[in-house]
Amino acid sequence: MELIKSLEWRYASKKMNGKKVSQEKVDNILKAIQLAPSSMGLQPYTILVITNPGIKKQILPIANNQSQIVDSSHLLVFAAWADITPGQIDEYIAHTAKTRNVPEETLAGFKNTLLNIITKKTTEENYQWAARQAYIAFGTAIAAAAEERVDATPMEGFNATALDALLGLKEKGLRSVTLLPLGYRDTGNDWLANLPKVRRQREKLFIQH
Amino acid sequence: MELIKSLEWRYASKKMNGKKVSQEKVDNILKAIQLAPSSMGLQPYTILVITNPGIKKQILPIANNQSQIVDSSHLLVFAAWADITPGQIDEYIAHTAKTRNVPEETLAGFKNTLLNIITKKTTEENYQWAARQAYIAFGTAIAAAAEERVDATPMEGFNATALDALLGLKEKGLRSVTLLPLGYRDTGNDWLANLPKVRRQREKLFIQH
Repeated sequence: MELIKSLEWRYASKKMNGKKVSQEKVDNILKAIQLAPSSMGLQPYTILVITNPGIKKQILPIANNQSQIVDSSHLLVFAAWADITPGQIDEYIAHTAKTRNVPEETLAGFKNTLLNIITKKTTEENYQWAARQAYIAFGTAIAAAAEERVDATPMEGFNATALDALLGLKEKGLRSVTLLPLGYRDTGNDWLANLPKVRRQREKLFIQH
Repeated sequence: MELIKSLEWRYASKKMNGKKVSQEKVDNILKAIQLAPSSMGLQPYTILVITNPGIKKQILPIANNQSQIVDSSHLLVFAAWADITPGQIDEYIAHTAKTRNVPEETLAGFKNTLLNIITKKTTEENYQWAARQAYIAFGTAIAAAAEERVDATPMEGFNATALDALLGLKEKGLRSVTLLPLGYRDTGNDWLANLPKVRRQREKLFIQH
């Protein structure tokens, strides 16, 4: 499977060279993110695609000065919905009805299931649920970047509160969850570039029943 | 990119036909899971691979009687570490040193960083962190199954406490997070098989900066 070769090729580049990733490759990575599955199909997240050097520079200290923030071509910010509201469910149901060319009324049962789920949960629980869904899209993006031989460095090490403030995410009902700089490895200056990949042994990672 | 075609092909099959997935395809999906990235490379999860029909039958009522549990070929249970302990960090550091053929002492700084992270967090916070990592592997597994043209139905709808008890996960320091039945769609009896995929519009899912 091509994907295995891609996952073996990839690693979390620690030093990128500033080269631009083509729009075609970026579009493919975004398309894969769009196609990623999520619970109930809700996709309760938004992805910010940052190319503006000024904004990247402001994010740098918020992300522990990890140089890939500014040396990347495109910086993806995965932001989960801070809550899941009835209005968002309405929009999703309307979009589903339109896509499948059915009256909204035929989706009433599904809509009620969704409303039941989100109203039983607290705002924080809805956010945590949304964040987990964002991680599926995040994993899909990492795989897609590798397929395109674009380097991508998954990053959790940043101050989410500061980033949310900088990007005005609170006002948008979003909370930043993870970062994914896309670019190209600077092999000569990246200490991780040539080290063997470390992965848990198959017999420890899996239990057969 | 082949992956986009695969993601367009896939959907969450609601009815599987009981056909067995070849060992080669299962091995490729497990290999992709093994290669999935995680924060600090820790892979704080274990995946149960269930083929035993008796166990699947017992899981069925725990998972809202979703028929794919028993009609799948292999049922994957993604279980996150219930806590992250210094012992697990020790094992990871020893494994890393061995894989990279360096003395463990050279990894002392990295080890301290890891120990600092996990001891600052509560057990619940460590588990939630581990669960998010499991979702990256989960997303990778869904993509890999699609690449192999194996159907896979992501499932969060199950009673985790009951499943943990059935599989003895608590004793193993694990908590079940998601399920992924692998198998083949029963197209004629699957109401979802021929419906158009619903995905958020690109202009809503992404914000450019």
